Amino acid sequence: MKKILGLLMAISLVISLLAPAASAASADKKEASKANSLHVQIVLYDGFDLMDALGPYEVFAAAGMFAEGKVSVELVSAEGKRSVPSGLKGPALEAQAALNPNRPGIIVVPGASGKPAGNSEDAVPMILRQAKNTDLTRLIKQALDNKNVTVATVCGGSLLLAMDGLLKDRHAVTNQMGMAALKAAGAIPVNARVVEDDPRLVTGGGVTSGLDVALYLVERELGPRIANAIENLFEYERKGTVWRAEGMMPTDFGANSAAIR
Amino acid sequence: MKKILGLLMAISLVISLLAPAASAASADKKEASKANSLHVQIVLYDGFDLMDALGPYEVFAAAGMFAEGKVSVELVSAEGKRSVPSGLKGPALEAQAALNPNRPGIIVVPGASGKPAGNSEDAVPMILRQAKNTDLTRLIKQALDNKNVTVATVCGGSLLLAMDGLLKDRHAVTNQMGMAALKAAGAIPVNARVVEDDPRLVTGGGVTSGLDVALYLVERELGPRIANAIENLFEYERKGTVWRAEGMMPTDFGANSAAIR
Repeated sequence: MKKILGLLMAISLVISLLAPAASAASADKKEASKANSLHVQIVLYDGFDLMDALGPYEVFAAAGMFAEGKVSVELVSAEGKRSVPSGLKGPALEAQAALNPNRPGIIVVPGASGKPAGNSEDAVPMILRQAKNTDLTRLIKQALDNKNVTVATVCGGSLLLAMDGLLKDRHAVTNQMGMAALKAAGAIPVNARVVEDDPRLVTGGGVTSGLDVALYLVERELGPRIANAIENLFEYERKGTVWRAEGMMPTDFGANSAAIR
Repeated sequence: MKKILGLLMAISLVISLLAPAASAASADKKEASKANSLHVQIVLYDGFDLMDALGPYEVFAAAGMFAEGKVSVELVSAEGKRSVPSGLKGPALEAQAALNPNRPGIIVVPGASGKPAGNSEDAVPMILRQAKNTDLTRLIKQALDNKNVTVATVCGGSLLLAMDGLLKDRHAVTNQMGMAALKAAGAIPVNARVVEDDPRLVTGGGVTSGLDVALYLVERELGPRIANAIENLFEYERKGTVWRAEGMMPTDFGANSAAIR
């Protein structure tokens, strides 16, 4: 027992010595934070994709750890507190509250998990269609109209909004497999891992891009030092330039139009 | 309504046309699969890290989708069916069954989510210590002795095993912040994202390396085409060479010994 305790103390000591990210975050806390406080709502609906939702959840939870008391994150649903099953018969997560489109902060809409195509009940297009028929897209529309809210989507979350006309003429990205569908639904698809469209819309590509969406928003809201501390902890480096409709336009060699048919 | 249905059909059609990964996986199913069937148990314990557990969960669930009926994955705990809270006061997941160390397949042990250092209740070393005092490490020891089981760890999962002496003189990796602790606990730390140690032990680095651990195991058990289909779907490319103690040894320039003090 004594030996184990000694080992644990050694482990704790050594971890503290080796945790430059944590100490960098705690040094100079006041300057590190640009925001007074940030609230994040992660929206769940039947058939949601676990990683689309929990990648961002965990990034914002870590941001809350490194920027003590400045960030809160919760799982919500259009219907309020309930157990929400994930797709592909995966585990359920408990939504803690109803999605509040009037609460300032960030709202993250994940994609669905299922077969990439087809008309079966467990196919992504059908899961998204069912979600579209709930109260969710009406609430998201309200959020998009609220100047204190940024709406972020991951993967099929972009399609869910687009299917209800909410992304009409807006720059956005989704899973590569859904880019043509995004265009068919009236959005302007952009081949980037993360796309920011004014005002207050940030969309991400396939599943793991949720990490990049959240890391970008953490940098935007809390600064690069918090985002970097999370990257070190997760052993993940944010990928890709966040596309925005500003700065110089690259010369069009006619290849882009062919990329998204 | 007709317009929406038309749009949905267009989306479905277009997604099917654009889903080469899915069709590659369904073509030539017999040859694609090397295994008869693969069962994966993802172990939950109080304070586990969501992404450590659900990254691999989702990779194996997608493998089950692409290799129809060949892969099953479930969440388990040492205590059996119960609701298991994740760390940092995160959401709970329902373990569906008791961890069975005698069941052939793969057992994944995630790390903990919490403050990277310190002695508080929400610090990773304390969460791992509590997990060590459950029946979990005894069951994992049984699994390590079973020649039909591969034990995989992610992040602090390696430390959890090492703290109980289960990784003595075995090559392993954990979160960069815990590498010295891993060495102090008797393992041989290796600076790689994924380390495979004979017999039947695969360890991963920080949080997101769970994706790489799982993608490697999917390739090993089901072949590269299933793993590639999952990478396309998730927009994630497996990172790093899986380190194994075979082949040529690189010349030692004396830098490695300094890297892990």
